[in-house]
Amino acid sequence: MTQFQTLEQALGEVVCTFQRYCRKEGDRNTLSKDELRSLLQTELPSLQTLQIKGQALEEMLTLLDTDRDGEVTFEEYIRFVAAAFTFFHLQFRDAPVVQPRV
Amino acid sequence: MTQFQTLEQALGEVVCTFQRYCRKEGDRNTLSKDELRSLLQTELPSLQTLQIKGQALEEMLTLLDTDRDGEVTFEEYIRFVAAAFTFFHLQFRDAPVVQPRV
Repeated sequence: MTQFQTLEQALGEVVCTFQRYCRKEGDRNTLSKDELRSLLQTELPSLQTLQIKGQALEEMLTLLDTDRDGEVTFEEYIRFVAAAFTFFHLQFRDAPVVQPRV
Repeated sequence: MTQFQTLEQALGEVVCTFQRYCRKEGDRNTLSKDELRSLLQTELPSLQTLQIKGQALEEMLTLLDTDRDGEVTFEEYIRFVAAAFTFFHLQFRDAPVVQPRV
């Protein structure tokens, strides 16, 4: 597993991921459903292990599009990312820290 | 610069960074001012280039501690991270995507 040099690089990656996928088609500043589906399937492998696909994935896409305009804005994306942080934090809060900085 | 395999790893790094620094002293689930100062100085090198140190850094520490209890909780940390995302996004929205996924 890659060891990130700094938090700053990880923050940059979260933003670059949004920008990379929203430029594939249509509006360059929002994620279409297809772009979002591609992002979730490629960038969040755990969703596969959690069996989040097909109908469950479609429901997730709808959930992220909070204003139901068919597009996911950067703000809607960050709200999802913040929820993912909380999920990860609660999962690993009492686990030993797996990435000692050497 | 390291190429992250997935968004998921970057999300994990953001959470692990909080957990790593808050276990250095005192309450294992919150960042003390010293832990937060160490995190900001080590993990966000850009703060140095933006000349955010000394008094400016102290003001930033206070800003993050929104309930003024002297400690920064995970929620307060994520609020800061979300603000950092927005800052990065606005900075690089119109720039060419620097990390083409190969």
